[in-house]
Amino acid sequence: MTRAAGIDVGGTKCLGVVIDLDADLQSGPGVLKQVREATPHASQLVDVLALLAGELGDTDSLGIGVPGLITLHGVMRASPNIAGSVDVAVGPELSHRLARRVYVDNDGNAAALAEWRYGAGRGAKNLWMVTLGTGIGGGQVLNGVVQRGVNGFAGEIGHMVVNPDGPRCTCGRKGCWEVYASGRGLGMLGSGEPGESIIERARHGEADAVTVLEAYARWVAIGLSNITNFSDPDVIVIGGGVSQAADIVLPMVQRWFVETLYSPEQRTHPELRAAQMGEIAGAIGAALLPHFSS
Amino acid sequence: MTRAAGIDVGGTKCLGVVIDLDADLQSGPGVLKQVREATPHASQLVDVLALLAGELGDTDSLGIGVPGLITLHGVMRASPNIAGSVDVAVGPELSHRLARRVYVDNDGNAAALAEWRYGAGRGAKNLWMVTLGTGIGGGQVLNGVVQRGVNGFAGEIGHMVVNPDGPRCTCGRKGCWEVYASGRGLGMLGSGEPGESIIERARHGEADAVTVLEAYARWVAIGLSNITNFSDPDVIVIGGGVSQAADIVLPMVQRWFVETLYSPEQRTHPELRAAQMGEIAGAIGAALLPHFSS
Repeated sequence: MTRAAGIDVGGTKCLGVVIDLDADLQSGPGVLKQVREATPHASQLVDVLALLAGELGDTDSLGIGVPGLITLHGVMRASPNIAGSVDVAVGPELSHRLARRVYVDNDGNAAALAEWRYGAGRGAKNLWMVTLGTGIGGGQVLNGVVQRGVNGFAGEIGHMVVNPDGPRCTCGRKGCWEVYASGRGLGMLGSGEPGESIIERARHGEADAVTVLEAYARWVAIGLSNITNFSDPDVIVIGGGVSQAADIVLPMVQRWFVETLYSPEQRTHPELRAAQMGEIAGAIGAALLPHFSS
Repeated sequence: MTRAAGIDVGGTKCLGVVIDLDADLQSGPGVLKQVREATPHASQLVDVLALLAGELGDTDSLGIGVPGLITLHGVMRASPNIAGSVDVAVGPELSHRLARRVYVDNDGNAAALAEWRYGAGRGAKNLWMVTLGTGIGGGQVLNGVVQRGVNGFAGEIGHMVVNPDGPRCTCGRKGCWEVYASGRGLGMLGSGEPGESIIERARHGEADAVTVLEAYARWVAIGLSNITNFSDPDVIVIGGGVSQAADIVLPMVQRWFVETLYSPEQRTHPELRAAQMGEIAGAIGAALLPHFSS
């Protein structure tokens, strides 16, 4: 048995798991242990992670998934949802404290690994995972290896510009994909009505809500088409809050995808699939990081 | 000596070379032979390629670079600049005719390999090559391997949508990057004035020409930022007609790049470099295809 520990640092809580890497892939990750703590101010983050690592006990590896921009050396350059998170050397400090190797990467990359190995992306050679949450996260698993880029910042697809004169993004630029295709974007397209309400009303066939959801699906599709033009993947897994309404949203996205993709009739399209791993994806993916990163 | 033959199929001519793969990298590809023929109608393409391969003689490998969408099996699905080019099985037919293995890939991928090995991209771990010609071609060399995607269509970055309600692209969709950032795009932004003339007048400091060129540079930068958000490369090589005015255009692009990139202050930026290999890049890159493809 290979015991792999993973901790997912979220905006409100840190979730830790130990999985058995040798467990049968079909039956899932085999979660051996699960622990959690509230996410502290960034200045206490290493303390809390050390505590959780202690609770997870003696394992063969330890991976941490953190939101935001994480360097190849495990330094958190900036994380919008964690107070005080500018240049926190999570990896080096925790590694020193625990006297063991610690892998730290972006939570989007971790989630991509979890879906690739145990979830909606099983068997994919070139998988993109797109998380449509409050913002948009992303990650690519190519030939079984998560892609980090030369700084560690690959997969920041939420900030691809899709309309340079569009509304301003939280990042300061204009018309990032996340302005339109995140949960926040759905609310904006619906003139402030909460996304859940728009989806619920669209389910009941209310025409104005369907119109808003179609507009949203078009923006989602534009980004997925761009990913496909770049990378030509076989599978794109869609996660985040919106994926819980996959039954109504995904068919709309699929129709718009064909409209927005280059030469759609000349190629096999990537399969668009809803994420399957739920909230635990981040922690399980974090446990996979040390084993499937280049 | 490893004799690698490559043929670049262009809109007007096919250029064939033999290079010595074992030649010193610093002194370039060591071109041993060079031949050319006019590009025929697609129905005669395999005949002309067989003729050129014969003229190139006995070599250790043969690679072909073709514009357009090329499948992993060497079938040209569609090529905008070659008459009759729908579903031409260039690779299989030529392979059969010559009774030897033939590698066929997109010319953008070939050019990327040439610049990575002998040109502006030497030493890059994660290189993107962007060719700003009549349209826009692209290719990525990651850890020494050209990236093809699951269909063979990776790197079709000219058709990333950057303004979904913008002018129509030749591909039928709206607001593709190529609408703005290709040579044709420069002409459009200059209200029909030829690109060379705009650049020439901007060199002389004529304010209206500088304004047009700045608008063009901004669109170029938006696409390069998107590439960086996706892949986090260390080098982006810019080729094509526009790169011949790199002295005036690149500094503008560089300034806009910082404006349009996500979190520019948090990372090492990719180096933006002008292509160095000139017109022979495609043929040399074609010769490299059999050796640096996955």
